[in-house]
Amino acid sequence: MKDKIHGGDVYRHRNALDFSANMNPLGTPERVIRAAAESLKEIHNYPDIRMEALRESLSRYEQVPAEWLICGNGAAEVIFMLALALRPRRALLPAPTFAEYEQALRLAGTEISYCVLREEEGFRVTGRILQEITPETDFLMLCNPNNPTGTLIPPELTAEILERCRETGTFLAIDECFQDFIDEPDRYTAKARLGDCKNLFLLKAFTKRYAMAGIRLGYGICSDQALLEVMRDCVQPWNVSIPAQAAGTAALKEEAYVARAREVVKKEREFLREQLAALGLKVYDSRANYLFFRGPEGLDKKALERGVLIRNCGNYRGLEEGYYRAAVKTHEENLKLLEALK
Amino acid sequence: MKDKIHGGDVYRHRNALDFSANMNPLGTPERVIRAAAESLKEIHNYPDIRMEALRESLSRYEQVPAEWLICGNGAAEVIFMLALALRPRRALLPAPTFAEYEQALRLAGTEISYCVLREEEGFRVTGRILQEITPETDFLMLCNPNNPTGTLIPPELTAEILERCRETGTFLAIDECFQDFIDEPDRYTAKARLGDCKNLFLLKAFTKRYAMAGIRLGYGICSDQALLEVMRDCVQPWNVSIPAQAAGTAALKEEAYVARAREVVKKEREFLREQLAALGLKVYDSRANYLFFRGPEGLDKKALERGVLIRNCGNYRGLEEGYYRAAVKTHEENLKLLEALK
Repeated sequence: MKDKIHGGDVYRHRNALDFSANMNPLGTPERVIRAAAESLKEIHNYPDIRMEALRESLSRYEQVPAEWLICGNGAAEVIFMLALALRPRRALLPAPTFAEYEQALRLAGTEISYCVLREEEGFRVTGRILQEITPETDFLMLCNPNNPTGTLIPPELTAEILERCRETGTFLAIDECFQDFIDEPDRYTAKARLGDCKNLFLLKAFTKRYAMAGIRLGYGICSDQALLEVMRDCVQPWNVSIPAQAAGTAALKEEAYVARAREVVKKEREFLREQLAALGLKVYDSRANYLFFRGPEGLDKKALERGVLIRNCGNYRGLEEGYYRAAVKTHEENLKLLEALK
Repeated sequence: MKDKIHGGDVYRHRNALDFSANMNPLGTPERVIRAAAESLKEIHNYPDIRMEALRESLSRYEQVPAEWLICGNGAAEVIFMLALALRPRRALLPAPTFAEYEQALRLAGTEISYCVLREEEGFRVTGRILQEITPETDFLMLCNPNNPTGTLIPPELTAEILERCRETGTFLAIDECFQDFIDEPDRYTAKARLGDCKNLFLLKAFTKRYAMAGIRLGYGICSDQALLEVMRDCVQPWNVSIPAQAAGTAALKEEAYVARAREVVKKEREFLREQLAALGLKVYDSRANYLFFRGPEGLDKKALERGVLIRNCGNYRGLEEGYYRAAVKTHEENLKLLEALK
């Protein structure tokens, strides 16, 4: 793995405007903060290890049985639980993608091969991946839309991948954490296939949808309940805190807020895309709440001198220096990003 | 492992007075709740993955270098990180003891043998354990005072165990989570040995000391910084939430509160011990903020009918039905426990 650099390090850059982490641009809903604050008077207790209230709310929100749901201390923990529960011998990952898939699989002792996404294909996952899924591939993890590129896998290709995984006996996990910000999320999610595909696992997070990264809450959906039971044995019983459970239960009521955020992101993403291109940067086809682009080396350092933090993607496997990711924020903030990059 | 029953399940017993989890009887300090509440306005950010403020405060509190400290989502997570980092082939555990040691070691693929604590020895760890530590023992985990029995390992025996572990090349982890409530904690902690013993790891928690189990924060101390680095690779980078980091930093200022709690626990533990014995229960020599005793089968169910939750210890390895654990709480609450057990 390359250097451990992560987005969102506001602690070493106190006065910078942070475009390096990808949150809902509207900020944390007041209701979520109030629910978490209210729950603090209960912290002398352990958290509910069955997470009953949260899982019931999630079951209604996702329209899946509560028994298909598993929660974690952020989606990142769910990735570790899944890797440790499955312990695949061989896994296939796209490159570039979210670094924690690789970290979790290495911990599980997995040998990893990579489907290298090509610049000339706009870093998209294409039909090429079907040939790379073989009977030796125990596990495939996809990120849709992908992080850091923001590109989407077309629903037809997802169906083909799922069919191929069924043939080869491959377990398919799809990280849909950023689907809340795309147009037509219902077209892109593989959720409808969960019932008939026990080898399918979907990963979701509260982090980005409700801008609550700091409280740690993510979840997975899978119809293989025996697998979920093994996953629970891979962590302590009290992994999701009381404020996280309370915040999550409250957040799921924020439907208008999520719809409004999707509108803001859609408009601002296209605005930023045009403006970044006008600055001479090569902008790829992100459909998420962040943009991925190529520019001169050291652009992040120059932006930081002007008070703006963007994500240098040079430490992603499959990328080199000169690639960057920036969140889509509010119009006023986006203007500051453009000013700094000029 | 036996049934997954844990203390502190207040969620399925809404109106019961909970003696089944062992918190500081004074409740969560107001300052801790305020600091956590205040931090909630920052949860749109990721937590500080370096935990700088928290680790600096902890370094002062524990009087150890910040580089020797590692934090987790509760002490329970730290146990998993340690087991996964070391992946010992063979481990030795006392029985009974805290069940998550075994859960974490099984996840790490460890073969476990047990030093069975004997009723006729008051369930104490005795010199017998020295013979059970062999060159094949890669890892030994002790809990001092032990959970659920509350018995302490005398400092002289701890020194002998440490010496024996040095001879056999055994890594020794000691869970000192409940030492905050014993008399003379400075005599019992192995902290002074950390500098010259790289094979020693101490586990500590905020959970019990400050009654903040629901927010999840624990830590470990070890002078082997390379090991701590491997441990960090065994979890996601964002494992400790923003409210947990804020609450922990604030909690460390509560010295008078901890001293007061120790006084209350000391007095009430001896009061409860006498009263439980007067009820005809066999009470063992707990020095912690809970008492361990033997009584008729089904005592916990009868207590629950009277609105009091105690911990049935029948599911601990090395115990059978008829053993119980009850927290030491405030005098008024303890009277209710006694009333229910009559």
